[in-house]
Amino acid sequence: MILEINSSFAFKLGDQPTDNLLQFEAAALSDQKVLSAKTHVSDPEHFTRVPAQDEVGERIWVRAKGECKVQYEARVEVTRKAFDIGSARLLKPHELPGHAVEYVFDSRYCQADRMQNFVADRFGKYTGGDKIVAISDWVAQNIAYEPGVSSAATTAFDTFGDRRGICRDFAHVVIAFARASAIPARYTSCYAPDVEPQDFHAVAELYIADDASEDGGSWQIVDPTGMADPAKTVKIGIGRDAADVSFMTTFGFAQFRNSSVDVREAA
Amino acid sequence: MILEINSSFAFKLGDQPTDNLLQFEAAALSDQKVLSAKTHVSDPEHFTRVPAQDEVGERIWVRAKGECKVQYEARVEVTRKAFDIGSARLLKPHELPGHAVEYVFDSRYCQADRMQNFVADRFGKYTGGDKIVAISDWVAQNIAYEPGVSSAATTAFDTFGDRRGICRDFAHVVIAFARASAIPARYTSCYAPDVEPQDFHAVAELYIADDASEDGGSWQIVDPTGMADPAKTVKIGIGRDAADVSFMTTFGFAQFRNSSVDVREAA
Amino acid sequence: MILEINSSFAFKLGDQPTDNLLQFEAAALSDQKVLSAKTHVSDPEHFTRVPAQDEVGERIWVRAKGECKVQYEARVEVTRKAFDIGSARLLKPHELPGHAVEYVFDSRYCQADRMQNFVADRFGKYTGGDKIVAISDWVAQNIAYEPGVSSAATTAFDTFGDRRGICRDFAHVVIAFARASAIPARYTSCYAPDVEPQDFHAVAELYIADDASEDGGSWQIVDPTGMADPAKTVKIGIGRDAADVSFMTTFGFAQFRNSSVDVREAA
Amino acid sequence: MILEINSSFAFKLGDQPTDNLLQFEAAALSDQKVLSAKTHVSDPEHFTRVPAQDEVGERIWVRAKGECKVQYEARVEVTRKAFDIGSARLLKPHELPGHAVEYVFDSRYCQADRMQNFVADRFGKYTGGDKIVAISDWVAQNIAYEPGVSSAATTAFDTFGDRRGICRDFAHVVIAFARASAIPARYTSCYAPDVEPQDFHAVAELYIADDASEDGGSWQIVDPTGMADPAKTVKIGIGRDAADVSFMTTFGFAQFRNSSVDVREAA
Repeated sequence: MILEINSSFAFKLGDQPTDNLLQFEAAALSDQKVLSAKTHVSDPEHFTRVPAQDEVGERIWVRAKGECKVQYEARVEVTRKAFDIGSARLLKPHELPGHAVEYVFDSRYCQADRMQNFVADRFGKYTGGDKIVAISDWVAQNIAYEPGVSSAATTAFDTFGDRRGICRDFAHVVIAFARASAIPARYTSCYAPDVEPQDFHAVAELYIADDASEDGGSWQIVDPTGMADPAKTVKIGIGRDAADVSFMTTFGFAQFRNSSVDVREAA
Repeated sequence: MILEINSSFAFKLGDQPTDNLLQFEAAALSDQKVLSAKTHVSDPEHFTRVPAQDEVGERIWVRAKGECKVQYEARVEVTRKAFDIGSARLLKPHELPGHAVEYVFDSRYCQADRMQNFVADRFGKYTGGDKIVAISDWVAQNIAYEPGVSSAATTAFDTFGDRRGICRDFAHVVIAFARASAIPARYTSCYAPDVEPQDFHAVAELYIADDASEDGGSWQIVDPTGMADPAKTVKIGIGRDAADVSFMTTFGFAQFRNSSVDVREAA
Repeated sequence: MILEINSSFAFKLGDQPTDNLLQFEAAALSDQKVLSAKTHVSDPEHFTRVPAQDEVGERIWVRAKGECKVQYEARVEVTRKAFDIGSARLLKPHELPGHAVEYVFDSRYCQADRMQNFVADRFGKYTGGDKIVAISDWVAQNIAYEPGVSSAATTAFDTFGDRRGICRDFAHVVIAFARASAIPARYTSCYAPDVEPQDFHAVAELYIADDASEDGGSWQIVDPTGMADPAKTVKIGIGRDAADVSFMTTFGFAQFRNSSVDVREAA
Repeated sequence: MILEINSSFAFKLGDQPTDNLLQFEAAALSDQKVLSAKTHVSDPEHFTRVPAQDEVGERIWVRAKGECKVQYEARVEVTRKAFDIGSARLLKPHELPGHAVEYVFDSRYCQADRMQNFVADRFGKYTGGDKIVAISDWVAQNIAYEPGVSSAATTAFDTFGDRRGICRDFAHVVIAFARASAIPARYTSCYAPDVEPQDFHAVAELYIADDASEDGGSWQIVDPTGMADPAKTVKIGIGRDAADVSFMTTFGFAQFRNSSVDVREAA
């Protein structure tokens, strides 16, 4: 599956140069190959790439001032194999490799500790991948997709109470429930053609037993919004939660202008 | 400086085997050399070491049941060079290497976003390492060291309001203030001989410009409790905050029995 | 129904006189008559009664120092009429009398605003007293009664996430859900013979349409723990939530010693 | 001092009749006399006045649908006597009359319990009304007046951390600090001519010893924004905090349209 991505966003910085951390490019991964890509940032005083979290993709440091515009176009081939989560085995905690361990711990927006009893009561009876299916179904059925009710400060615990949110909030609740079940879970920003309306998207990824992996496990996409088909999803970056993977983080003053995303299957 | 460490802790698990993640051993690092070490865990059904966060030290997976006792003794040579934080330069955000970036983001217990204005108002005037000295001094002067008032749920924001806490809470506030200043900050569990009363200890480490490092920066200990002299501090592990670096995390039921720590300078 | 109450509690104050607010006596109300009562407070420097909230019962100001012991015994006749909540009508907001209005607003521990969507989704279909029955049943079925997991800082929103608590927490969730449904709800401390183990108890009271009342409504007990039969419940005082109705609030340092409660039906 | 008030606000309700609670009229009080007043609500299906909290002013129940417009004009004579807070005596807790007691307890937005240590450390040395002056000065100096950063969900504890807010937030912090000092404090909505830009305003009122009152105390305005001179302030209503005293609370869907306030000294 080849996907064509066109995205752009613009923001206004102050008169003095300000540092910004950007993360919007498709990551080069074993199951997604960046065939071609073009990134344009208007008039930066400074521009450096650094490896992003766990070496999934890159972050870009841009130092600039005044109006700033970012444009990105890419062709990416996704070769992700189908994986049947429902019939997969879950790893026991002591089977987890070192690199997955930090993803069972609580993070800024995913306070698994505060929902442990609910998770035990509701999902404790499942022992395999059907637990993950049950978690995803619960989120899909109990949280309404409603733009504008949540903000950058909203946590998984808030969303669990408020029962409203967007992709970010859906992913946070899945992550919190998974961690409360001792399943490593991370937050993944991505592009996907079926996101409606088209925008930057976010999903949860859970670490599940996978005999095809030498580590014994692999990260699998879980998206209760139903908009990200793993076979058509282009990952940008990963983190503990949304605190880690914003398309733009400004270290100073910035005024967001607009953004536009267009993702489509190549003809 | 050679330090002798003796520590132990015991807990009671249920009748069924339970997974536990332990992290109490001195890490092998370029500036601390583990001369000898002996770890004893009573009767585990399963025992594996995995690399810990950012490869600082190791975590141990122990699967066991019933009464469980852990004993550790080690001789560690600390060769950490003195570093004058007050006269150091701070890195600009865009100078940060990729591996340090995640440590400017918010975490479970260190919500820098909620204290950004206070930090700007109070510490904004400082531009170099004296900002870190000012932060550490503020914490030492405004937070009272008082065991028993904080818990595992207490955040930096809670402590900022409550003005009471222990080493964990002091470190959390330093970390939150540093991140609100765009300085990467991590949480480090450690052994130190001057901790009074003797116990597992925790400090903040901040990432500061360091010409002697090929990355351009290095992690430096900041401890407003004044109990951890960097020259005598043996690091165990690091993380975003206390959520990541507990000496014991149980994935099931466990009843803590007791712990004992003895750290002294070798004769 | 005549109930005999014996209760006592003791606490240690500092060497300097400290002010304490006590509220542990049966209130004199139209549906509960205090036949006899004896209150003994050891050695107060100052002792005054003041009317308590909404004139339900009294609070006692005690200024004292050192060891302080409170003893109370009373015979109270409860003549509360049976009231069938399930088949009652709910008042529309605009029918509420002025004195009931403040009890639809949020309070310290009952943040109805944060659970409004859940309440609408789950209980929105009910229009009469069966909504209250549904709320009470939900709490009884989804929150486990478990001493020791909640604290004085635990809110209804915390309990909604944690699904564990004691009578205080059960009442808080009922109150929050009721207010989110525009039903006035208050927190009532009380004595009841079937509380197991015997202790001070707390319930929610909801304001419901009542043709027998000249206001058009009356306060009815809702207790999802099932331990407070309205016909045998002796009310002490009321408030917005537990912040208002503690049996002891100290304005200074106090160390709680012990308490004992014995409530029984008169022979 | 005679003040002329013209205020109006409009909102859009759904197609079905919705209940709304309005509170925008000058209260009739011993120290402010409503010389004339005219209230117009467009096309209500139902309109009732009920006494507001502690009988300070009235609330209006309006049931309506579609576009709804409220207009109010009044002439009010304020005869409030000057009161020198700085040299006043503070009441000891045990001197508080029953009606003032609930105002030392925590409320939804004023969690005094979480800031008790800070308050003790910072203001503990003051024993009289100069404590209140110190609290008000601290808020004026440490919280920046900045519209748009706080929301209806912002608490005093949030503002204490964020150091930004509007009149509502300033009042909340004063109230929380006062209660943490055992001084009863309430939230008062009001009109005042020097509010800039003209809008509904809010202040804190603290209960202070007053020999001229038969209760031994009286409520005194504290406004760290400096915009409400007590001699020119027309009170609307009071409550524990902003949860209790909104100019409009809707029990259903409503879309705010606009509001306008004009308060001036009579020629």
